[in-house]
Amino acid sequence: MKVANILEHKGAAVYAVKSDDTVAEAVAVLNERNIGAVLVMDEEDAIVGILSERDVVRKLGSKGASVTAMSVRDCMTPSPFTCSPESTVNELMEEMTRKRIRHLPVVNGAAVVGVVSIGDVVKRKIDLAEQEAKALKEYIAAC
Amino acid sequence: MKVANILEHKGAAVYAVKSDDTVAEAVAVLNERNIGAVLVMDEEDAIVGILSERDVVRKLGSKGASVTAMSVRDCMTPSPFTCSPESTVNELMEEMTRKRIRHLPVVNGAAVVGVVSIGDVVKRKIDLAEQEAKALKEYIAAC
Repeated sequence: MKVANILEHKGAAVYAVKSDDTVAEAVAVLNERNIGAVLVMDEEDAIVGILSERDVVRKLGSKGASVTAMSVRDCMTPSPFTCSPESTVNELMEEMTRKRIRHLPVVNGAAVVGVVSIGDVVKRKIDLAEQEAKALKEYIAAC
Repeated sequence: MKVANILEHKGAAVYAVKSDDTVAEAVAVLNERNIGAVLVMDEEDAIVGILSERDVVRKLGSKGASVTAMSVRDCMTPSPFTCSPESTVNELMEEMTRKRIRHLPVVNGAAVVGVVSIGDVVKRKIDLAEQEAKALKEYIAAC
C-alpha cells in the first residue's frame, strides 16, 4: 500500500502559509481547517518548513504569550522530512515513529501533492483490514 | 494484543495537572515531558479532563495570547474517553480514528494506570511486525 493510495481517499488538499505570516495567522488556519500542521511555502510554492501544533505549544512555553505576534519563520520546523507518492505506508509508519513526527508532506518532483498524518495512516490500515475481513466473509459465504 | 502490553513496554508514567493550574503551567509540563497531552486530575486522583496540544492551540486561536493565564479548567476537554488495560490495540486504533483523538487514559477500576498515544499504538504494531519477520527468518534459516 502506497502513499498515493491514501491521498486518493483523503484528497490532495494542501494548506500553506508564508514564513513572514504571524503565528496567529497560522493558528487560524490550523483551527479553521481542523488540521494539526500547516506547510510553510515560499513564493515559488517550494516547502521551506512545517508548523505543527507541537511547534506552537513548544514556543508558547519558551516565549510565552508573545508567540502569537512572532513570524512563522521563527516558530516553524525548517526543511521538514518529506515522502513520495510511491513511499509505502509501512515505511511511513516506521519513519513517523522513529522521528516522532505526525505529518509528512508528499512531494512529487518539485510539486507538493499532499500531506499525510499519522491519523491518515492508521485510518487507511483499518479501512483495508475491514475490506479484507468483508471479502473473506463473502468468500466463505459463497463456499 | 492489549493495552496492558503497550504499557509494559512504554512504562506507566502518568503526568497530571490540576484544573485550577494555569494553561502556562500545563504547557510547561507538556514541554518538559515531551508529551502531547496531560491529564487533569482532582484531589482524589480521579480524571476530570485532558489537556492536549490541540486544546491549547484551539484556545490560542479563539482567545489569543491571554490563553496562558487561563485556568486549565477553561481550556481542557472535560470527561475524556478512556480505555482499559484489557482493551485491544485494534479497538484503540478504531476509536482514535473515529473520534479523531490521539491520547487515551488507561483506567483500571478507579485507578489511572497510564496513557497511550496514537504514536505508541503504531510503534507497538511495528515492533510486533519486526519480531514476526525475525522469527520467520530464523525459522526458514533453520529448515
